[in-house]
Amino acid sequence: MTDTETASRASLAGLTPGQLRSMFANDGWDGDTCGLALGYEQANLVVLPKNDAYDFLLFCMRNPKPCPILEVLDVGDSVSKRIAPGADIRFALPRYRVFEDGRLVSTPARVDDRWRDDLVAFLIGCSLTFESALLASGVPLRHLEQDRICPMYETTMECEPAGRFAGRTVVSMRAIPAPLVPTAIEVTARYRHAHGAPVHVGAAEQMGISKLEEPDFGESISMEPGDVPVFWACGVTPQIVAQQARPQFMISHFPACMFISDREAHVGAI
Amino acid sequence: MTDTETASRASLAGLTPGQLRSMFANDGWDGDTCGLALGYEQANLVVLPKNDAYDFLLFCMRNPKPCPILEVLDVGDSVSKRIAPGADIRFALPRYRVFEDGRLVSTPARVDDRWRDDLVAFLIGCSLTFESALLASGVPLRHLEQDRICPMYETTMECEPAGRFAGRTVVSMRAIPAPLVPTAIEVTARYRHAHGAPVHVGAAEQMGISKLEEPDFGESISMEPGDVPVFWACGVTPQIVAQQARPQFMISHFPACMFISDREAHVGAI
Repeated sequence: MTDTETASRASLAGLTPGQLRSMFANDGWDGDTCGLALGYEQANLVVLPKNDAYDFLLFCMRNPKPCPILEVLDVGDSVSKRIAPGADIRFALPRYRVFEDGRLVSTPARVDDRWRDDLVAFLIGCSLTFESALLASGVPLRHLEQDRICPMYETTMECEPAGRFAGRTVVSMRAIPAPLVPTAIEVTARYRHAHGAPVHVGAAEQMGISKLEEPDFGESISMEPGDVPVFWACGVTPQIVAQQARPQFMISHFPACMFISDREAHVGAI
Repeated sequence: MTDTETASRASLAGLTPGQLRSMFANDGWDGDTCGLALGYEQANLVVLPKNDAYDFLLFCMRNPKPCPILEVLDVGDSVSKRIAPGADIRFALPRYRVFEDGRLVSTPARVDDRWRDDLVAFLIGCSLTFESALLASGVPLRHLEQDRICPMYETTMECEPAGRFAGRTVVSMRAIPAPLVPTAIEVTARYRHAHGAPVHVGAAEQMGISKLEEPDFGESISMEPGDVPVFWACGVTPQIVAQQARPQFMISHFPACMFISDREAHVGAI
C-alpha cells in the first residue's frame, strides 16, 4: 500500500475522527490509522452473517481480553449508534478485507457494494487505545521509538470456544523497562475495553513462543538492557478465529486500517 | 413458601455451595438463598429458546450494569462449566418460575421435566455478591439490620434495546450513611460482574421514583438520619425484560432463590 497518491500522513495530524472518516470515505487515504486521531479509541471490525452472529458474540463474551466488544450494530445496519454516531462502517475505514468461505477475495477501500441485509458488524477494542495512556504515564514504547509495527505472536493458549469459533490467543508484546512493569499493568488494567491488563509477563516459552525475534505478525523490535517482555491479548485473535471458522462471508478491516471512533481514550493515565 | 417441612435456615449455615446445591436438588430446601454460602457468588437464572438467545445476549452486553453475564451455557446444555463446574442448573436451585408466552405457569422445585434441547441458560450476576464486601468494608446495610428484603424500584431509565428485548432499568436501593457513600461506590465498582458501581446517588425523583417508601419489589426500609439513598442496577431488570418480550418459553429462578456458584466473592473489600 502506498500513500503517495493520496494525502501525506503529516497532513492528517490534527484532523478529528469525523474528518478522517470523511477523508477515508472519499478515498483520500488508504494507509494505516496508526498515530491518527491520537487520544480517540480505534476499533477492529468483524462483519459476519446473522447465522454466525450468536456464536461469535458468545465467543467474544467468553474471551473478553482478546475480544472486548465496543459495539454490535443491529442486523443489517451499517451505521454506528454508540462509539461514532452516524458513521457508516461500509466506508468509514481506509481499507477492508473480504473473505468468502474463509478465503481472502479482495481488499477494497469500501464495502457498500458487498453489503447484505443479514450482516452483523462487530466493533472490537484495539490496543492503540491504551498506548497513548502508557506514553502519558511515562512508559516508553520501543516499537514506536524504532518505527516498527508492534510484534505479535500466536500462542498455545486456547480461547474458550463457542460453537464453530475456536482458536488460540494471539498476543502483542511490548518491551517494558523492569521498574515500569507495574505501571504498565496498572494503566492498561483500566482499559478493559482495549484488552485490559497483560496476560503474561516474561517467560514467553510458557505460551509456546520460542523466538521473540521472530513474531508471527508485525515486526521484531530491539529490546534494551533491563527490558521485560510483557504480553497483551491482541485483537488479531478474533480476526483469525473468525477466518478459521470459514464463514460463508466475512468482512474485516485491513490490518492496521482501523475504525476511528468519536470516543476519547484519555482516562487512565497515572 | 414455608421452611418448616424442610431444613431450618440455621442448619444451612456453614454448608458449602456444593452441599447446598445437593440439598436443593434433593428437595431439602425450597426457601430463599439469602445469607447462605456467604462469600460465594450467587446468580440470577434466565433460560430461553435458542431463537431468542442472540437478542438476549446482545441485550445483556449492551446493558452490562443490570445484566452482568457470568456464564452462558452451550445450547441444550444444563451443566455449568465455569462458575460451578458440574452443577446442573435444572435442579441446583431451590425453586424456579416457568413462563409460557410470557405468562407464569408454574413454580416447580426442579425443571428437568421441562428441559429442551434448544434451551440456552444465562447466569447473571447478583447484588448478594457485593453485599458481603460492603459489610466487610464497614458499610451498614439497613435492610439486613431490619430483616427486610432490599427495596427495588422500576425507573424511567430505558435500557438499550436489542431485538425484541427492551424495557426500563430496575434499581435496588440501599440507605448509606453519607460519609460512607464514597466507600460504598469504590467497593462495588470492583464488582462489575455483580452490577458494579451505583447508577444514581440521591435524587430518586430524577429516575421517576416518587415514593421511596413504596418500592415496586422487595420491602420498604427505614432510613436513619444522615442516610443517603444509593441506587444500583438490579438483576430483576433482565427477568422483567425477558418476561415482557413474551418468549414462547422461559425459565427463571424463583425470586431470591438463586444459583449458588463455587466462585468466591471475597475480593474487593477495602
